[in-house]
Amino acid sequence: MSIGDEMYKWATDLFPYNRSITGKGVRQTLTYIKSILPNLRTKSIPTGEKVFDWTIPEEWNVESAYIITPEGKKIANFEDHNLHLVGYSESVNTVLTLDELQNHLYSISNLPEAIPYVTSYYKKQWGFCLQDKIRKKLSKGEYKAVINSSHTQGYLNYGEILIKGRDKKEILISTYVCHPSMGNNEISGICVTTALASWLNSVNNLRYSYRILFIPETIGSIAYISKHEKEMKENIVAGFVVTCVGDNLAYSFLPSREGDTLADKVSRHVLAHQVGEFISYSFLERGSDERQYCCPLIDLPVVSVMRSKYGTYPEYHTSLDDLSFISAEGMSGSYKVLKRCIESLEANHIYKKLVKCEPQLGRRGLYPNISQASNKRAEANMMNFIAYCDGEKSLLEIAEIIKAPIWELIPISEILIKENIIEKC
Amino acid sequence: MSIGDEMYKWATDLFPYNRSITGKGVRQTLTYIKSILPNLRTKSIPTGEKVFDWTIPEEWNVESAYIITPEGKKIANFEDHNLHLVGYSESVNTVLTLDELQNHLYSISNLPEAIPYVTSYYKKQWGFCLQDKIRKKLSKGEYKAVINSSHTQGYLNYGEILIKGRDKKEILISTYVCHPSMGNNEISGICVTTALASWLNSVNNLRYSYRILFIPETIGSIAYISKHEKEMKENIVAGFVVTCVGDNLAYSFLPSREGDTLADKVSRHVLAHQVGEFISYSFLERGSDERQYCCPLIDLPVVSVMRSKYGTYPEYHTSLDDLSFISAEGMSGSYKVLKRCIESLEANHIYKKLVKCEPQLGRRGLYPNISQASNKRAEANMMNFIAYCDGEKSLLEIAEIIKAPIWELIPISEILIKENIIEKC
Amino acid sequence: MSIGDEMYKWATDLFPYNRSITGKGVRQTLTYIKSILPNLRTKSIPTGEKVFDWTIPEEWNVESAYIITPEGKKIANFEDHNLHLVGYSESVNTVLTLDELQNHLYSISNLPEAIPYVTSYYKKQWGFCLQDKIRKKLSKGEYKAVINSSHTQGYLNYGEILIKGRDKKEILISTYVCHPSMGNNEISGICVTTALASWLNSVNNLRYSYRILFIPETIGSIAYISKHEKEMKENIVAGFVVTCVGDNLAYSFLPSREGDTLADKVSRHVLAHQVGEFISYSFLERGSDERQYCCPLIDLPVVSVMRSKYGTYPEYHTSLDDLSFISAEGMSGSYKVLKRCIESLEANHIYKKLVKCEPQLGRRGLYPNISQASNKRAEANMMNFIAYCDGEKSLLEIAEIIKAPIWELIPISEILIKENIIEKC
Repeated sequence: MSIGDEMYKWATDLFPYNRSITGKGVRQTLTYIKSILPNLRTKSIPTGEKVFDWTIPEEWNVESAYIITPEGKKIANFEDHNLHLVGYSESVNTVLTLDELQNHLYSISNLPEAIPYVTSYYKKQWGFCLQDKIRKKLSKGEYKAVINSSHTQGYLNYGEILIKGRDKKEILISTYVCHPSMGNNEISGICVTTALASWLNSVNNLRYSYRILFIPETIGSIAYISKHEKEMKENIVAGFVVTCVGDNLAYSFLPSREGDTLADKVSRHVLAHQVGEFISYSFLERGSDERQYCCPLIDLPVVSVMRSKYGTYPEYHTSLDDLSFISAEGMSGSYKVLKRCIESLEANHIYKKLVKCEPQLGRRGLYPNISQASNKRAEANMMNFIAYCDGEKSLLEIAEIIKAPIWELIPISEILIKENIIEKC
Repeated sequence: MSIGDEMYKWATDLFPYNRSITGKGVRQTLTYIKSILPNLRTKSIPTGEKVFDWTIPEEWNVESAYIITPEGKKIANFEDHNLHLVGYSESVNTVLTLDELQNHLYSISNLPEAIPYVTSYYKKQWGFCLQDKIRKKLSKGEYKAVINSSHTQGYLNYGEILIKGRDKKEILISTYVCHPSMGNNEISGICVTTALASWLNSVNNLRYSYRILFIPETIGSIAYISKHEKEMKENIVAGFVVTCVGDNLAYSFLPSREGDTLADKVSRHVLAHQVGEFISYSFLERGSDERQYCCPLIDLPVVSVMRSKYGTYPEYHTSLDDLSFISAEGMSGSYKVLKRCIESLEANHIYKKLVKCEPQLGRRGLYPNISQASNKRAEANMMNFIAYCDGEKSLLEIAEIIKAPIWELIPISEILIKENIIEKC
Repeated sequence: MSIGDEMYKWATDLFPYNRSITGKGVRQTLTYIKSILPNLRTKSIPTGEKVFDWTIPEEWNVESAYIITPEGKKIANFEDHNLHLVGYSESVNTVLTLDELQNHLYSISNLPEAIPYVTSYYKKQWGFCLQDKIRKKLSKGEYKAVINSSHTQGYLNYGEILIKGRDKKEILISTYVCHPSMGNNEISGICVTTALASWLNSVNNLRYSYRILFIPETIGSIAYISKHEKEMKENIVAGFVVTCVGDNLAYSFLPSREGDTLADKVSRHVLAHQVGEFISYSFLERGSDERQYCCPLIDLPVVSVMRSKYGTYPEYHTSLDDLSFISAEGMSGSYKVLKRCIESLEANHIYKKLVKCEPQLGRRGLYPNISQASNKRAEANMMNFIAYCDGEKSLLEIAEIIKAPIWELIPISEILIKENIIEKC
């Protein structure tokens, strides 16, 4: 099975769980991921614990939730779609008029088929989300609203994988496990991160160490940073929030706050050379966990390489962002770009020429070895690489200058080391 | 009376005085300003005193000046318009032919209604300026030219206001009092500077100190700098030459020599956010006292925020630049922009976040307080401000990054300080 | 005779010699140059000597070379055009079929009139170059290929001129003497370099020292650098590879590897102000001895100011790049631009104002002296020059800022020094 198909299968399995920032859906999701990634360590932080300016909320779980119409019909049933229930809704069992009920209903008038995704984590209330076409047809009369949910002293759960490389310096990969049944935002991030972790687990002799996180958004990253601040600041050289990587439309890029960190540079380079055209957003358009990783006093070099970015497509945060909105091809493309970013970082060494002036490549048989009749480009890449190999510029910087994909320079660097023309600094 | 109307009244009163680089017109002007700004201190430097590479010239005063035509008609009469007499003309009482007279006449052939403004400060001569349509009709015959003027050991006069703030660091505001009856260049500068000084006199607890100058152009600024060089270099953090601020056409900006001083940054920011489109000139197009303030060895951060810049409009340096060319609206607009520049400088502190990761604004009731139903922008400004509040960037730098007017960030900074989310560095 | 005509005469004389990287043609060329430049010192490095990663090759000389057709006709005769023989061809005297011969023939199908220029310096083989229209007409049958050439222990020859200036710091001027009978690439470089050296020989009291090289391309510059690395690195402040300076089409510029050295800045300034439009290439499009001078570990500030660059015009490296492709005008234009670059470097001092604020130019009679009635530009240049004369910026930097050609500022600097307004730092 291709990696794309595999990811799509995981997406299909994970889709129905009722994820939120806490609760059973998160634990089910982490258990599923652990079945693929045995080195996933699951952690929990108890309700009430202070994390920086925030407090871990009560755990929320749902038994059932629905509305009974005057006609006796059960609508907005949580069993049918977990988006029907406003996230973190409190229990209710009440009879009320349509007018009273309207204050608790959410729909989107210009997307009449969509169930919107609404939450109220930090203010207790209750509500139902439903298709606007259904809502429009509700008749006057008595409605019964039933929510059997619990807010209890419990845990915020997350998963963490630490992979040791030769270097203590780390690459951060972070995705979130708090979104219920939606595809691009955010089953896709979980699946692509799982695939990246699975690949990294299989690579021998990694240069960098890897910190891979499956956390609830915002409260999860805040909690995680509060517990690992020192080591993250010391070690992370580049990080990626993996989100909105499921559809097969244009690629997009959200930079770090600084905008020109190693993570920014490698992502832009890979996108430019592997994908070509992509949408460049500003950090002002941020909206996921880079809000925490990149904030002042934390200042980590974290970016997002995405497909259709949160907030930019009509299906966003509705039931229309479903399994048909994402695809094996979409996730596979995102996976390949992120894998390339990591491979590029792994290879991004500084090299120094050992030979003054140009080396005589001819007598080493390097032209025939490298440049086939038609392969002018490899020859130019080699000469240009040598021309900038000054012991100061990294492979990525040279690749940018000579306008070549860094991955075309990796085999060249290996040949030149073997021929004693360059050495790794 | 609105500040615009007030300024226009001052302009009307000040217009007729025969200002030059020395003489009674300057003293009359300073006396008038002192009636509005009691803390104006008037100073005088005697003729012959050396100021850097220059010498204070003799004082020039005029009793009367006119030409008698062969027909016995009195033309180019100084009593009718002080532009009729070439500035610093020496006394003369002579009869001469039209051809001989022509060497002493100045007019503008493509502006037949305009009396041009001509001076000869540093080479003694005499001359008359008149409408070209009058000059064209002069008949052959004997003309009598009469100038009763005096060049005497006297004084160069100027006015100075020093306002103490909490900080020794100063803002310089400089305008010039040497131009006779013209509106945009330069009654407007005097009036807008007077209004700014009047406002600053009324502000409690100013952060910066203010040095406000009413001086003759060039020789006046050179003389002033020669007497205050050390303190000006030590203290001035931003300065404004207030000139050509009277008409109601486009705004324009002349940068400092360095081009990116605090004065440049705040002016461009305020113009961009308050005015929108404006004309950006190069320092190579300079032409007023920034020539002295910004020159090497002095190097002050001084700019000009203007309306129609000297030298760029046809009425410039003619009688057509009169009270109808300027307006209450024009001066009021310039005043508001310069006031905003000063307010922005006063508020341009560096703030530091006290909270790691994003603060939980919800539990502080900050969303409802700040963001009304429709007020997404204030909410975005607050989140973006916090996201860049790193203890290094000034409020102005953050405003530029987050593309918000600095004055929208000032109330936000006050709320966040109160909530212990940020502190002033 | 104009310098253009003189250069064209030298080109005509030098054109027929069979130059290569070694051999008699190089020595004949150097002897001819020495007849114009008596201070040329000719040097030789023996075959087999190691120079960095390379080895001085055997010396190559040719007695005769031709093909006899089945019809008994002598074609591709080296006596007719030295491009007929592939450079460094080994001796051969053999009979072969047309099919066998084809493996040794070179022509250009879409330039049927051109004899291409082909060499094989570092791999022994033999071959002939001929017009494609001749090649197309060759009949089946037996051909005789005759090459009487020798590869012997000999020398690589080059010429060097060192001119001492007041300063040990040097300007490098380097051209190459290894190309046989072609005009733009590369008789033109030899002629323009000779003219520049002749001019420099005549200048009294030069500021910089000059190192002028007539060397074989690549192996010659590598060999020369290997013998003079330390002094070149210590002393060279700017260098020019003089190549492709013969035709009268657009000017072009190839920067140094760093891209913003003094050599880059002065060349771009002179081209912009003397020529106006010119083609800017990237260092990635390099192709001559800057490949050695600018490489990492050597890092000299060397650029090329050219007309039609090697590799960009259809006649390049063919017999069509002949004496009719170049002209006295073409070489003369290139000479003037390079001379201006050198004059600009000689004058590129740092000056400091001695007078605070603007100097009073009027009392020094500087306006009339400098600015004739119509000469507003000289006046503006003087005021602008003074306005940026801060003891830090060089004349070239000021010229760039005030958008004036540096050569218009040189006489101004002399007047201002005489008037004690500025001094040389």
